[in-house]
Amino acid sequence: MKILPTIALKKGAVELIDQTLLPVEYKILRLNRVEDLCEAIKALRIRGAPALGVAGAYGLLLAVEEKWRQHDTWYFDADGTNLDAFPAIATVEAVQQYIDINAKILRDTRPTAVNLGWAIDRMRKIYARVWDDPKAMLQALYNEAQAIYNEDIEMSLAMGRHGAALLNDGDNVITHCNTGGLATSGYGTAVAVVFSAVETGKRVHLYADETRPLLQGARLNTWECVDRGIPVTVLCDGASASLMSEKKIACAIVGADRIAANGDTANKIGTYNLAIVAKRFGVPFYVAAPSSTIDTAIATGSDIPIEQRSPDEVKQYRGVIVAPEEAEAYNPAFDVTPHELIAGWITEKGVLQPPFDR
Amino acid sequence: MKILPTIALKKGAVELIDQTLLPVEYKILRLNRVEDLCEAIKALRIRGAPALGVAGAYGLLLAVEEKWRQHDTWYFDADGTNLDAFPAIATVEAVQQYIDINAKILRDTRPTAVNLGWAIDRMRKIYARVWDDPKAMLQALYNEAQAIYNEDIEMSLAMGRHGAALLNDGDNVITHCNTGGLATSGYGTAVAVVFSAVETGKRVHLYADETRPLLQGARLNTWECVDRGIPVTVLCDGASASLMSEKKIACAIVGADRIAANGDTANKIGTYNLAIVAKRFGVPFYVAAPSSTIDTAIATGSDIPIEQRSPDEVKQYRGVIVAPEEAEAYNPAFDVTPHELIAGWITEKGVLQPPFDR
Repeated sequence: MKILPTIALKKGAVELIDQTLLPVEYKILRLNRVEDLCEAIKALRIRGAPALGVAGAYGLLLAVEEKWRQHDTWYFDADGTNLDAFPAIATVEAVQQYIDINAKILRDTRPTAVNLGWAIDRMRKIYARVWDDPKAMLQALYNEAQAIYNEDIEMSLAMGRHGAALLNDGDNVITHCNTGGLATSGYGTAVAVVFSAVETGKRVHLYADETRPLLQGARLNTWECVDRGIPVTVLCDGASASLMSEKKIACAIVGADRIAANGDTANKIGTYNLAIVAKRFGVPFYVAAPSSTIDTAIATGSDIPIEQRSPDEVKQYRGVIVAPEEAEAYNPAFDVTPHELIAGWITEKGVLQPPFDR
Repeated sequence: MKILPTIALKKGAVELIDQTLLPVEYKILRLNRVEDLCEAIKALRIRGAPALGVAGAYGLLLAVEEKWRQHDTWYFDADGTNLDAFPAIATVEAVQQYIDINAKILRDTRPTAVNLGWAIDRMRKIYARVWDDPKAMLQALYNEAQAIYNEDIEMSLAMGRHGAALLNDGDNVITHCNTGGLATSGYGTAVAVVFSAVETGKRVHLYADETRPLLQGARLNTWECVDRGIPVTVLCDGASASLMSEKKIACAIVGADRIAANGDTANKIGTYNLAIVAKRFGVPFYVAAPSSTIDTAIATGSDIPIEQRSPDEVKQYRGVIVAPEEAEAYNPAFDVTPHELIAGWITEKGVLQPPFDR
């Protein structure tokens, strides 16, 4: 199956597809500084909860690379490390402190996506240990970051397989926001279910909510489906009731940015509306996400922090003004769909129900 | 109260605000030809069911003006007629036939809006009579068109009054698409309810669905509210569930393009989604429309013809490409909200329930 180069370590830098330019332009950004990676995350050049987890892990390696950068060499690459070049004068404590500062900076870029903090916590469990040698610590950190990346690919493929079993040949599936390869290390969550079903020979037509304000559905799901030869139809976010009243929709599948212990699910703004509409039409509504998205420390959705984004995302589109300056705008990045509207949570472990620890 | 110059007869031409340019530019178009008026209707330079009724009536006068146009004079103006200048050689039959051809052309511009056909039918009842003199016929047609215009203003004001009684001081109201003065002869339907409540001293905050694909909510409701000093917040169409979960919304009020005898209501795509979401949160959902929008010849919503518009409205925004060329788009102009989701129909006659003839 096809894996997109959503995010990669490349000879001392983080490389990623600038998703804000798609579908018009396909451009790989090479980022040498943590500051630039944070800008890319905040500006949604890279987005999607699982991809942000990998970005967080790689961001810590980038921090080390940036601080102790040496001319004409690098420490971290997708194919391995080059830690012999790491300066002997850097103490374990100095490296640990420096990584810890950057962990906080990276974590604060997006407050809702649990995977970002989850990946950084995994990295901390490594670097916070007692180490004799910074190189050994950095090799272990690299291994952990690569494990997060590789596990994300594996989880996408497993989620795809588990979800694909729910789909039949000829199904129409509706989704909201982008949850394909671009949202992850390269294969996807909700849309990976469609990819996986298609790879097993089922014909599936994807209906993609355009997903205002930033149009990840119109721009990214369509681009990925066209790239894979999967039929895709984009619709305005308000058109799903009309669509379901006209056409048989087999199910809705969306991703998640954070799932509470009771199953309440934070995902891109507009998900809750789609879930309510699906319920009205008896269309099963599934969430597909790696189990790392489940935050058992949070009992219900009302405890999930919701990022508020700039009103200008609603009032403008790429410099085109669509509302007067004096008007206010309501622009939360996410909403929380109550668990009772969700038929099942498709994870790498299977299709689960809350409480997820049983 | 303030009446906008949405559409007017001005010395032999139809003048209208080009609504596609708002809120960035306020421009009055002067249209001398029926063809140009039809283009303006199809391109939504003027839209809104009641405004289209007036456009249909004025369009027939414009047809006469265009065909028998004389240098340096005109036959029809907002302030009266100048029919002495009408050429004596034009026979009653020739004028009738010519008007009838244009009636069909105008009617076909927008298939869903019932008011367009309704206004043209009213005009036909006048011109299809036996007439001795074309000038007398044209004077009667002019009187009928002005009556349609004036009644529309009166109906807006009456609707506003009836609806305003449903609102309390401090209420938050949500709406979809533009239904203010720009959608009518100059005062409005659903949003006129808010205008009317504010004019009686109640503080009301309007939450305006942006209304993709053409953003009439973001562009026009906001512009009208800012113009009147009414607080207005725009939101993406998918954000209403999030909004209702956070904030007390007193009610939703929307307009209508056609209402079936059982109350099923065709309105701008996205209305049905909002109605389903409002139901989930127990928010009363009202339709505000002149009684001419009720089409008793149509039993239920499934018989209402739905205009399909260009996929490019979804896939582009003012020349900015937002989806790849190969992707399809689903773009009906309207959806049909089932009557059971609607709490009441606010008309110039009061707040009604189906069947409307009792």
